[in-house]
Amino acid sequence: MLPLPSADGKITAEQIRQYTAAHFADGNAEHIVQPGMVYLSQPTEVGTIYDKGELSAIWQVCQAFELKLYVDGARLGNSFAAEGANVFLPDLARMTSAFSIGGTKLGALFGEALVINDSALKKDFRYMIKQRGGMLAKGRLLGIQFETLFEDGLYDEIGRHAVKQAQRIAEGIQARGYQLFAQSPTNQVFAILPKELLKALSQEFGYAFWQAYDEQNDVVRFCTSWATPPEMVTALLDGIRKK
Amino acid sequence: MLPLPSADGKITAEQIRQYTAAHFADGNAEHIVQPGMVYLSQPTEVGTIYDKGELSAIWQVCQAFELKLYVDGARLGNSFAAEGANVFLPDLARMTSAFSIGGTKLGALFGEALVINDSALKKDFRYMIKQRGGMLAKGRLLGIQFETLFEDGLYDEIGRHAVKQAQRIAEGIQARGYQLFAQSPTNQVFAILPKELLKALSQEFGYAFWQAYDEQNDVVRFCTSWATPPEMVTALLDGIRKK
Amino acid sequence: MLPLPSADGKITAEQIRQYTAAHFADGNAEHIVQPGMVYLSQPTEVGTIYDKGELSAIWQVCQAFELKLYVDGARLGNSFAAEGANVFLPDLARMTSAFSIGGTKLGALFGEALVINDSALKKDFRYMIKQRGGMLAKGRLLGIQFETLFEDGLYDEIGRHAVKQAQRIAEGIQARGYQLFAQSPTNQVFAILPKELLKALSQEFGYAFWQAYDEQNDVVRFCTSWATPPEMVTALLDGIRKK
Amino acid sequence: MLPLPSADGKITAEQIRQYTAAHFADGNAEHIVQPGMVYLSQPTEVGTIYDKGELSAIWQVCQAFELKLYVDGARLGNSFAAEGANVFLPDLARMTSAFSIGGTKLGALFGEALVINDSALKKDFRYMIKQRGGMLAKGRLLGIQFETLFEDGLYDEIGRHAVKQAQRIAEGIQARGYQLFAQSPTNQVFAILPKELLKALSQEFGYAFWQAYDEQNDVVRFCTSWATPPEMVTALLDGIRKK
Repeated sequence: MLPLPSADGKITAEQIRQYTAAHFADGNAEHIVQPGMVYLSQPTEVGTIYDKGELSAIWQVCQAFELKLYVDGARLGNSFAAEGANVFLPDLARMTSAFSIGGTKLGALFGEALVINDSALKKDFRYMIKQRGGMLAKGRLLGIQFETLFEDGLYDEIGRHAVKQAQRIAEGIQARGYQLFAQSPTNQVFAILPKELLKALSQEFGYAFWQAYDEQNDVVRFCTSWATPPEMVTALLDGIRKK
Repeated sequence: MLPLPSADGKITAEQIRQYTAAHFADGNAEHIVQPGMVYLSQPTEVGTIYDKGELSAIWQVCQAFELKLYVDGARLGNSFAAEGANVFLPDLARMTSAFSIGGTKLGALFGEALVINDSALKKDFRYMIKQRGGMLAKGRLLGIQFETLFEDGLYDEIGRHAVKQAQRIAEGIQARGYQLFAQSPTNQVFAILPKELLKALSQEFGYAFWQAYDEQNDVVRFCTSWATPPEMVTALLDGIRKK
Repeated sequence: MLPLPSADGKITAEQIRQYTAAHFADGNAEHIVQPGMVYLSQPTEVGTIYDKGELSAIWQVCQAFELKLYVDGARLGNSFAAEGANVFLPDLARMTSAFSIGGTKLGALFGEALVINDSALKKDFRYMIKQRGGMLAKGRLLGIQFETLFEDGLYDEIGRHAVKQAQRIAEGIQARGYQLFAQSPTNQVFAILPKELLKALSQEFGYAFWQAYDEQNDVVRFCTSWATPPEMVTALLDGIRKK
Repeated sequence: MLPLPSADGKITAEQIRQYTAAHFADGNAEHIVQPGMVYLSQPTEVGTIYDKGELSAIWQVCQAFELKLYVDGARLGNSFAAEGANVFLPDLARMTSAFSIGGTKLGALFGEALVINDSALKKDFRYMIKQRGGMLAKGRLLGIQFETLFEDGLYDEIGRHAVKQAQRIAEGIQARGYQLFAQSPTNQVFAILPKELLKALSQEFGYAFWQAYDEQNDVVRFCTSWATPPEMVTALLDGIRKK
């Protein structure tokens, strides 16, 4: 793992170019872990999304340096539903070596679909599934879930619902005078809220502690999904009194 | 992997003792793979079962040589239902380092329960699940299946049904003048049948080719499960004309 | 690898304690790499050394959290010869799980001696050497070098010579009005020198670029060894004109 | 490891072809270890050698099935000196993916030279040396030995001497009425000798027990090298009285 620093959860083509060029220019390169693949998440860990220009620039750098490009789409459906989204399945198929379509976080019981675009990576892939302990005797369980998710636009619908509820939370929090910690157009909301208020909310609502902010406030994360009832969002916002 | 030869799918305490003693007596031992764990299947790959005396003898050898003993119970429920079976869960809990209780082959959608008896093996086990890619976000899917299998004797019932149907096949085949290839008291039947007959059966029934026997005959395997209707066994036997 | 930040190449008992305590207090610990061993270098990568109090404090934290403690002694002999050194072989034998005694950087052709103090780590160690491709057919080549290094104080003498020459460089550089970048009492000297001067020195002397300092100056590293002639140090200092 | 049976230490192109074809014809192939590389030793573990026709046939099968071919030449120099040898360095360079030239058993202190012919295997090779712990700080120690071995025919001379002394042993043993266990034209002699005689010889000569033969006799192996004095062979044969 060669982590690159990031303020908004995204890395840039220029960062990748600089890091990789510096690695191969270093006379001691063979003593150091070699960059071989770029790993992105769409959406990122803080809910932001790469746009088509960013992805395209990264893909070009990857090709220039013979790096593979992998996009982790554990929450992929939520990126499709984000306002301003312009990276969809055909773009990922064209501008990545491989990417995953997350099932677990988009309504499936379990499973991620892996799409391998780079034919050099396809050889012996099923042997690898077996070797790594990932081959299920009743693998149809995985297939049937994805077949269902991609019928009649269900996958998109699940993403749209989750994102819509998350954005209601984000707007409601701001309308009540509180600040967001990150600008996430997807199904995660990062908010700076008073500890006292959070304590009260925790009686009825689930959120994840993200980090301390200051003496009085913490940053917390709210996540929504296909299973978030709109009335629960209303109740949450009702629980947040105006500042 | 250090395979020991076996005629009936089982290995013996004496084989293990001899192999291990010979290994450590060899001055070149450190150049050779070291025996560290004994791996058995109950029932075995050819449907036979270890009895309590055999398991106990193996367990004693393992303790004498500080070998771990693992019993793979992918089809465990079928061993409990076999005629003459005298190794049950409490015996496995007492005389193994760890053993698995298979779900997939006993009616579950997927999953095996791993029972670790040796406390030295418990440390960091959940870290290992994560490291090896085996930790599910919705792990409750596994738990709920085993909870259900062990309510009201369901697990035993599934095994009993499968074994009963398999034994009907075994007896029917012999009654029609054909021979069994192995004596399996569980849910697998290994039979020597004419190729011509097999071809006809394959229109309606599934079996696995096991090995060639002679010019006219092959050895094939029939498996039964919770989902095998008794009338299908009847139909199969009806399809096998007397020799 | 879980790196801890350090200004002088050393980490502290308190850093280890805090990191480890925080890890195990985190409800998501099993999703995160677990601290299992503390890895130090003596001397460190920037030539500094741990004193007995620091090592003892680290050893106590390791025991409290059941962490192994490994000291990488690739340049160990140089730490023994440093001014103020009070950590010697008996201390390492008493306060580490394992440590190495470097041969390659102390005059040997190749090889490091590994001293394992923790008996739990000794089991099957020679099997591991073999498994990892480290077992030499003519292993006596390693043994004879260490036997020789530890006869008649040769190992200590090699360290003393290297450190003495390095300290002459350090003092000479300061006497000529230049600054050191790090305070290293061993055989490495980190100096801030004008690029122009460095260019001239590079005709006759070897040094390693360490990092850029400012427009006019770079940080470089000079290393000495058993093979550094005192007159070469004199020549180097003669080549550095007063500022 | 997928071992193929062999009577004389060699495997054949036909064995490889059959095994590989059967593997890929098996519908369950992805559950089974896949053949990816053929690994030969020249000379073999019992001192025999592949001739050019055999190597060529194996190389053709490897290409047909896209298998890599690796020849382990730990004792390579001895194969060059064998009577009837017709596989030399240019043949190995042309008909293998990679092969090694053993140093340790041909007079070097340590080290094997690896010759990679298949350019697909060259990428990142030095990174792999580092990753696997095989990169020496003073790697020139390896280079200088091979440079010396390949000057003025030294490598060949070492092999010729060893093989000549071994063949003297083989002929002498047969002349005294004893049988060889294997026909080895290289530097290893496998002889069937009376236990009583072996006991007497062991006072002055080193040999390796290979396997029991019958009540009175054992199979043992004598090895020769660059360091075997001809007079020691004479003394050995003097110690073997006529049958």
